[in-house]
Parts: sequence; C-alpha cells; structure tokens
Amino acid sequence: MTLTEAALVALIARAFERHGMSPPNAALVAAVVAAAERDGAASHGLLRLDGYIATLRSGWVDGAAAPVVAQPAPAILAVDARNGFAQVALAAVRDQAMAVARSQGLAAVCIADSHHFAALWPDVEPFAEQGFIALTVVNTRSRIVAWGGRRKVLGTNPMAFACPRGDGPPVVWDQASSQRAQGEVLKARIEGRPVPEGVGLDAAGEPTTDPASILDGGALLPFGGHKGAGIAFMIEVLAAAMTGGRFGFQDDSPAFPGAQTSRAGQFLLVIDPARGPGGDVPGRIASLVSMLREAGAQRMPGDERRHRRAQSLRDGISIPDAAHAKLVALAGDTQ
Amino acid sequence: MTLTEAALVALIARAFERHGMSPPNAALVAAVVAAAERDGAASHGLLRLDGYIATLRSGWVDGAAAPVVAQPAPAILAVDARNGFAQVALAAVRDQAMAVARSQGLAAVCIADSHHFAALWPDVEPFAEQGFIALTVVNTRSRIVAWGGRRKVLGTNPMAFACPRGDGPPVVWDQASSQRAQGEVLKARIEGRPVPEGVGLDAAGEPTTDPASILDGGALLPFGGHKGAGIAFMIEVLAAAMTGGRFGFQDDSPAFPGAQTSRAGQFLLVIDPARGPGGDVPGRIASLVSMLREAGAQRMPGDERRHRRAQSLRDGISIPDAAHAKLVALAGDTQ
Repeated sequence: MTLTEAALVALIARAFERHGMSPPNAALVAAVVAAAERDGAASHGLLRLDGYIATLRSGWVDGAAAPVVAQPAPAILAVDARNGFAQVALAAVRDQAMAVARSQGLAAVCIADSHHFAALWPDVEPFAEQGFIALTVVNTRSRIVAWGGRRKVLGTNPMAFACPRGDGPPVVWDQASSQRAQGEVLKARIEGRPVPEGVGLDAAGEPTTDPASILDGGALLPFGGHKGAGIAFMIEVLAAAMTGGRFGFQDDSPAFPGAQTSRAGQFLLVIDPARGPGGDVPGRIASLVSMLREAGAQRMPGDERRHRRAQSLRDGISIPDAAHAKLVALAGDTQ
Repeated sequence: MTLTEAALVALIARAFERHGMSPPNAALVAAVVAAAERDGAASHGLLRLDGYIATLRSGWVDGAAAPVVAQPAPAILAVDARNGFAQVALAAVRDQAMAVARSQGLAAVCIADSHHFAALWPDVEPFAEQGFIALTVVNTRSRIVAWGGRRKVLGTNPMAFACPRGDGPPVVWDQASSQRAQGEVLKARIEGRPVPEGVGLDAAGEPTTDPASILDGGALLPFGGHKGAGIAFMIEVLAAAMTGGRFGFQDDSPAFPGAQTSRAGQFLLVIDPARGPGGDVPGRIASLVSMLREAGAQRMPGDERRHRRAQSLRDGISIPDAAHAKLVALAGDTQ
C-alpha cells in the first residue's frame, strides 16, 4: 500500500481523534508519526501507534490539552503543556521562539507537564531550516543507572541537535543517553538473543547480557560510561528541574494501565547565528562537513533519513497491507 | 614543600610574567593552574607549566593580549580574545554574562581567537556558585575521527557543565569528547603499554592498541561511538563556527615550534533558573542528587576534587620538591 504523506497524516489523525485527541492536536502528532514513517525511522513511525492509543485510552495523557505559553524573561519562553503531548506545546511556541531568537540572539523554551513519545529530530530540524542552531533535550522515565550506582534514576534522556549548512540541508542528529535503546533490548528478548556487554545491569545492579534481566527490574547503562551519565544528568536538570517538569523517578504512570509515555519536560535552545559574531556560520558549517566527508565519514547523521525522505516524496510512502488495514480500522474508516 | 593557594598563584604568576604575560593575565591563568593543583587535578596543574612556557616562548600565543568585549544582541556577548588565553577573555566578560543572564534569562558568550590549555570546570563552577546553570564547550586541534571516517577532523572538544544544588556545593562535570584523553595515550607510550581497543586508529584509519600508531599520524576515537561524535561535532559548531573562532583543522601552530595550544574558540551558555518557570531549581537538583546517591552512585562528578580542595585549604597545597625548585627557577626567584 502506498500513500502520499498528506493522506497518511490524515489517516493517523483520524485514528487519534477517535481516541480522544482534539483535531488540531491530532494533526500535529500525526504529522510527526508520518514523518518518521516517511523518513524510514520505523521505530518512531506506525510501530508507535498502539502505544499512543493505549496511552490515550488509559487517561494518562490529555489528548485535547491546550498548552499555555508565557514569557517569564525576555529570552525565556515557558509552556505549560497541561499534561498533553510535547509536540502540541512546541507547535504553540515555535514562531515565538524564532522571533525571540531573532531579537535577543537566542531563546530558551521550557516545556513542562508534557509527554514525548516521538523522535526528537522533528523538533529541531524546522529551526535549522530557518537558519537557526537548535538543541533540545527531553527527560524520560527512569531507566539509566549512573556513576557506579546499582539502581536506575536517570531517564534514557534523548538529545537532538540541528544546524544550518550553507550548501545543503541542515545537519541533524538525535540520540538517546543510553548505550542502547530500550526498544533494542525488547527486540533481543523477543528474539531470544543476548545483548552485548555494557548495555545493562540486572535487578541486583550486576552486569548482564540477558535482556529479560535488564528489563525486569534492571537498568540500562549510559553511552560512553561516566561521560554519557554526565549528559543524561544534564538533560534531567535542563528538561525537568529548569522547566518545572517531573523527574523520571517521579513517574506515576503505573496507576494508568497501558500508559507508555513519561509525564516530564523538554528544554529547547534556539540560537540565531546571524546575531552572533561568527559571520557566515552556515557557510563555515558547510566547510566543516566537507572536511568530514573528505576524511571518509561516509554517513553523516541524517543522511539516511534524507535519502528515504526523497524517495517517499517521489514515490509515496510504502506501508505493509496489515499495518494499513489496522490503521484504517483504528481510524474507523469503512474502506 | 607545602604552599598556601595564594603563594602558589603568586609563584606561578611570576613565572608567567617572566615569559611574556602581562601581570593581570599572568594572575588569571596562574589561578587556574593553581586551582587544578589544589584540587588534585594533576594533569591540568603544574604538569602543564612547561607547555605554557614553551607556547609563550614560541610566539604562538599573546600572553599580554587585551580582550575586546561586544554585545551584538541583547543575550549574546562576543569576546575577541586577541590571540590570548581563554581564561583572560572569560574574566573580561564574566560579570557582564551574569548581568545579562539575570536580565534576559540567559546569555551566550562567544569567545574567538582564544587558547584554552586548562581544565574546563573552573570556567563554569563560579557561575553555579552564584546560582546559574552554565554549560561551556571549547574546540581544540583535530584529533578525533568521526562517523566511520579514517582521518581526524574534530578536536577532543571538551564540555563542562555546572548547576547549583540547594543543599551543598554545585554539581560540576568536565569531560573530553574522546574516549580517552590524548595525555593517557602519551602516558601509555612512555610506559610501553598498549591502550584498550576503541581508543584510537592508526594512520591508515585502522583500529590499533599501539599508542605510538595513534599518536604518529593516527587519531583518537570519540567516546560512545557515533554519539560522542555527535557531541564533538556540536562542540566544533558552537565553539568555532558560532563564535568566529578557527576550526581544529585550521590549526597552523606547526609554524611555531613548541606551541602546544589550539588557537580556537569557546562557547558558554549561562542560564538564570530563577528567571525560568521551574520554581526552586537548586532545591529540585538537590533531590535529584539525593536519589542518585541513594541508588548507589558513590562518586558524583567533582566529589574527589572537592575533597582534595578541602584538604588543600586546610593543610596547604603539597608540591614535590623538584617541581617547586623548577617553578622557583622559572619565576626567577633566588630562594
């Protein structure tokens, strides 16, 4: 089954609307799910649909939330997501964030009481396409053990970065603070495979390669040892403490069976390089990327997504028949 | 030999003055070297003295540089370090950075044409002691190979983060973007030991555990694989492109035999959490740290430095006689 991006967004949005999301919110979140599918980022595409629906059904997240934006300082924008999806909160503040960055040189967006269940690159890429440098971090449910600890406290806390490039599309990366994604460990358990050493600890805080021991009361390890722990800690401070959002260890989703998202926070920094002292910043980033490619970096972050995106925009987004049938059923269509 | 911190700073400053630094610049850089020695951070203490002196003698850095501060946007401060040490540039802008963060909510400091040869934590700790969250990054000479490349392009690009903690001193970390520090590989070569796998590549871009092959035309690998490469890339963009400083691959120090510093840039973000929506941010950070300690994190970043600092402030800073004699000779004292 092949759909245009617009048709896929509309179909996902109908499924979300039928499960409690307001039409504008459904359109915003559907666009992010469809974008992941379009770019070949399957783990954040239609695979997530069941998780979204179960979370909406559980009553854990408010699909109709209307975020409230404030400006507590000239360069800080605060968004109370009102227990809704982070993408809705970000959409409510995006234009203002760009305006503040243009006038002040930079803007910090603090989103609290939000749920982020999507990839993070869609949050920063649009800023870089408009010439801004953007960095965002989100805190999640506790999953990482840090600095020689034996129990998880920090989340898998992802970070995404995007910057404009004078001679082409932005450079965009998006990465979790764990050595491996929780989803990869889940996949290993399903397939009956061990995971590599260094991925996680068991419930007693001992190293293990058994995915079940990691998932059942154990914990993930940060990427790059204590350095990744430093990054995960910084993200917990910026995304939760700075915004007024909950820490991962304050999660109380177990009261809502089926809930799969973290009620947490997000911090976003938007910088207008044209207001700084750097001159032609996108041009210089282009020269840095050229040097990296000349040195043999064959796949820069985002290359694969961009390649798949071009294919999808040309040929349509290809979806397995079963996934399409399920989506149609969720959307209540009578095709 | 045991000295007070003030006596050690004065002695190092005299040594710097005798080798071309202006008195105020000598005092600033000496304070950072002495602080490292005081805190037991030996790799950035008196061990660096020869490197500073050789670099000053080479003419590569201007020890008497007078930095120039500008404010191109309300929340951006730009410092032209005039080919001097980064600590001098930062000292020239520190108070203004705090004032801007207080009034705007946050401030970005862009330092260009600067040399950073010290630890990075002294740059952020003073901000956190005043209640600010601070993040800084510095780019260095090319040493890291990224994203499957075979030649080094990015620097070992360190990052430091500090945040206030309601019930104690700030949490402060400081880490390079390489898996191991260049100094550790040098030490392994001297001691005739191999380094672990994953530390570096040889000149042909192949993995090696031979420190000489890494140092002679080879490269270091980033921490945490492609994720550390993402961090190193972001730092190169912020510290060099954003500030107008040179990229690591633009280094031309070989024309100055003895020069050991990178002529590069530094980016510093200062956030005033009191201006954001988070409420008692230092108090919440204290609760996060408590959770981490309860989960078994026995050594938080900075714990060891703080322990050694308390000792030094109580008992004086202990220095080997040979190191002291050398320092006295460099300072031209006739003790």
